[in-house]
Amino acid sequence: MEEKLQQLKNRLNRVADLRSAESVLHWDMETYMPEGGSQARADQMGTLASLAHQYFVDEEVGKLLEDLAAYADQLDYDSDNASLIRVAQREYDKAIRVPQNLVEEISRTASLSQQNWQKARKENDFGLFLPWLEKTIDLQKQLAACFDPPDNLYDALVDVYEPGMTSTQIEAVFTPLKPKIIDLVKGITAHRDAVDDSVLHQHFDPDAQMAFGRQVVTRLGYSFERGRLDLTAHPFTIHFSRDDVRITTRVTADYMPSALMGTIHEAGHALYEQGTDPALYRLGLGRAGMMAEGTSMSVHESQSRFYENIIGRSHPFWHYFYPRLQEAFPEQLGNTDLEAFYRALNKSEPSLIRVEADEVTYGLHIMLRFDLENDLINDRVQVKNLPEEWNARMEEYLGITPPTDSDGVLQDVHWSSGYFGYFPDYLLGSIFAVQLWEQLKKDNPKVVAEIESGQFDSVLSWQRDKIHQHGKKFTFDELAQRVTGSTLLWEPYVDYLTTKYSEIYGL
Amino acid sequence: MEEKLQQLKNRLNRVADLRSAESVLHWDMETYMPEGGSQARADQMGTLASLAHQYFVDEEVGKLLEDLAAYADQLDYDSDNASLIRVAQREYDKAIRVPQNLVEEISRTASLSQQNWQKARKENDFGLFLPWLEKTIDLQKQLAACFDPPDNLYDALVDVYEPGMTSTQIEAVFTPLKPKIIDLVKGITAHRDAVDDSVLHQHFDPDAQMAFGRQVVTRLGYSFERGRLDLTAHPFTIHFSRDDVRITTRVTADYMPSALMGTIHEAGHALYEQGTDPALYRLGLGRAGMMAEGTSMSVHESQSRFYENIIGRSHPFWHYFYPRLQEAFPEQLGNTDLEAFYRALNKSEPSLIRVEADEVTYGLHIMLRFDLENDLINDRVQVKNLPEEWNARMEEYLGITPPTDSDGVLQDVHWSSGYFGYFPDYLLGSIFAVQLWEQLKKDNPKVVAEIESGQFDSVLSWQRDKIHQHGKKFTFDELAQRVTGSTLLWEPYVDYLTTKYSEIYGL
Repeated sequence: MEEKLQQLKNRLNRVADLRSAESVLHWDMETYMPEGGSQARADQMGTLASLAHQYFVDEEVGKLLEDLAAYADQLDYDSDNASLIRVAQREYDKAIRVPQNLVEEISRTASLSQQNWQKARKENDFGLFLPWLEKTIDLQKQLAACFDPPDNLYDALVDVYEPGMTSTQIEAVFTPLKPKIIDLVKGITAHRDAVDDSVLHQHFDPDAQMAFGRQVVTRLGYSFERGRLDLTAHPFTIHFSRDDVRITTRVTADYMPSALMGTIHEAGHALYEQGTDPALYRLGLGRAGMMAEGTSMSVHESQSRFYENIIGRSHPFWHYFYPRLQEAFPEQLGNTDLEAFYRALNKSEPSLIRVEADEVTYGLHIMLRFDLENDLINDRVQVKNLPEEWNARMEEYLGITPPTDSDGVLQDVHWSSGYFGYFPDYLLGSIFAVQLWEQLKKDNPKVVAEIESGQFDSVLSWQRDKIHQHGKKFTFDELAQRVTGSTLLWEPYVDYLTTKYSEIYGL
Repeated sequence: MEEKLQQLKNRLNRVADLRSAESVLHWDMETYMPEGGSQARADQMGTLASLAHQYFVDEEVGKLLEDLAAYADQLDYDSDNASLIRVAQREYDKAIRVPQNLVEEISRTASLSQQNWQKARKENDFGLFLPWLEKTIDLQKQLAACFDPPDNLYDALVDVYEPGMTSTQIEAVFTPLKPKIIDLVKGITAHRDAVDDSVLHQHFDPDAQMAFGRQVVTRLGYSFERGRLDLTAHPFTIHFSRDDVRITTRVTADYMPSALMGTIHEAGHALYEQGTDPALYRLGLGRAGMMAEGTSMSVHESQSRFYENIIGRSHPFWHYFYPRLQEAFPEQLGNTDLEAFYRALNKSEPSLIRVEADEVTYGLHIMLRFDLENDLINDRVQVKNLPEEWNARMEEYLGITPPTDSDGVLQDVHWSSGYFGYFPDYLLGSIFAVQLWEQLKKDNPKVVAEIESGQFDSVLSWQRDKIHQHGKKFTFDELAQRVTGSTLLWEPYVDYLTTKYSEIYGL
């Protein structure tokens, strides 16, 4: 059995190498590739995706997994080897349902679609993107159909990023949450004058912004010897091993939080990957990443949203960092005290861009996308009507209408990349982040004081011990049970938001 | 037959994609990869190399080639399809002799060896590199042995970069050339005071150097929409398609020609790749590149050396560019006239670093490496004695001894990458460049006047028509015959050097 296990590992090594190579090509495409390289890059990524798929769905893998099933049953459920066999089996059962030419077509289309989305967004021309989005959605429907989901075609796509999750389960969380958030937004809107964030809307030198971001994420524990930070149209995290985990951000010269909070968000993803147990190297188990591998994206988002919001927009965090930020930008911030800055940074109001939305309204952006995806995949909305649908729902959910499609339906990279079913995980992750934060405070009552003094070691150690090291050994539910003794709870999230924003806005 | 040809092309597409992906990973490793990424990168590149090899040596390819042989015979020898089948057959016959695990081992070793070479060079510690070089040479001997060369093990490695060439043929060119060059060096040394290059040894702002280099290669026809320029430890050119051909250089702040001439050299390689016929896309035929694919590296070097020396160090070239260079560096060059600058740039004297050697002494650097490689592969020199052997031959060939190994045996990337057999092609290319230049002047008598006025279009058109478009359809000999009506001639090279340097030094 040891020998068969090794054969399985060798096979998974090869698949992991091909996927990592595809990721390097993707990173290059987003950062440094000259425009002329697009067509060849799409072909190359298509070939790598196809080969990775082909090596994984090979019947030899199925045979090895079959032979190893009884062996795995004798092992401790939480052990690396049992988890490897269990997760590999789950992914294999899904992967064999997808024809190889569909995998290659999805990858090739994604590369070209992204190029066209970038152009469409730049030129504010949805029409440029429309044929690519139609093709992408058609391919996603084909993908979903491979899994023959019993209730809702969209469930099959949700399952890609959050194994076992269904749209019904998501609705069970989103539906009670929605009126609570809308109530909170109404309360805040009634007190909108309590917060003035004009101090953030000054000119902040882009290089100095980047330098400060680097300083912050280094302090949080992100290793630049095992990563790097670059500029891209849309921030993302990507990893080629636990020792090469790269983040990107974008800079807005006249709004300071954009680059910084984006960098912290991505560092949250990156700390997860950099903290994976080295024993999981090259096994795919360590790839709890951005690719459609059936890992739990909600847990990934819980880490990024944890750092971005619960840490990065907290009073204790800025107690330590604000004097340093003032030092970096004395002209802009010299006359603003910590309390005013903290309130400015947490200003909440309905706005257009998801990645720059505040914590309270963020959930509504996600619900909008979740509903639209569900409708698109089930043909309840036509792709060509998407700008109008988007704008109508923005008005309905947030009470505002985007002046341009670039600020509306074209703002996110996800649909151009074929990431349908991913969006709900941002909110599930935000909700879980609060649950984890409550647990961390129970496990280490000194944590708030430590953060106030700029000590983040124990936060990271706790995360590594409880979450990061495990890669994708466990499902969301399994992990939540192991760390917090419970499945996902939405009530602490509402309490957290209500307490924090009642204090800020004097509700 | 059309169908079988398409099957062959599909297969070659996949191989080309894997090799291109490997090249992207290599480029990233040399430019932006964090240090921590080394191990995983070596594994990933090993996997890609192994798979590319595996797909190419598959017996299905052999079967297709067999079936297509008679069909190819009916086609015009120079046609794309006949050339594709012919070159694929030649490479297949070689590739099937190399076991897959050796391919993977060579690739994996090269990645790690390069990391260690960089460190050894930085720290001037040959001992750090020694075990990797020993392993690399051992692997190269294993590789050579696969081909069972009749006379000399080293011939098999020469053949990797220059199909059909043998060390005996190279010696037939190098042996008569050597005394001629040594005589010329002696003549120059006796008149060394005729040229003063101190004007080049001033501080030149690195960013301004890079900007000027970009301006020059753009004028020569290099497209930045289909390429880019970055900084690396050792300059190189790499391509992932004809539309993504990247160059790198290094900057020496206190010696201006280093970055500029390196950039022009690499642009010469890059213009070749950017000029490949689009019909050869993804067929490997278009990859007349830096990888060990059996293409003619001498022809590639003829293009880089042509731009670096015959154009880039010529009087007509600087007639156009010198006023522009003076504008970029008025403080350093304002008081130096064109004639003095031209002589300074062409100063010839024995020196330590090959890539910065002048045209005259350059050949001796190559002969040294050719002789050492021949001796290393045939066990006439032990790897651990290489620094002493290197230094002794530097004294013998050039009359100087490197003060450190970083300036001696550790200076080139080639051996760390496993590129044994490549060096002689630099000199063969230099010699062929002169032969091409004589032909170009015959074909277009106005070319010198055009260069003087900064017009390089006709130079590039001539090269594209005669050389670039063909990719690796033809062998060196076939191409030389088609373009110049003759095989390689060394006499024009001696005449060129003698005329140019007699004029500069007043011999």
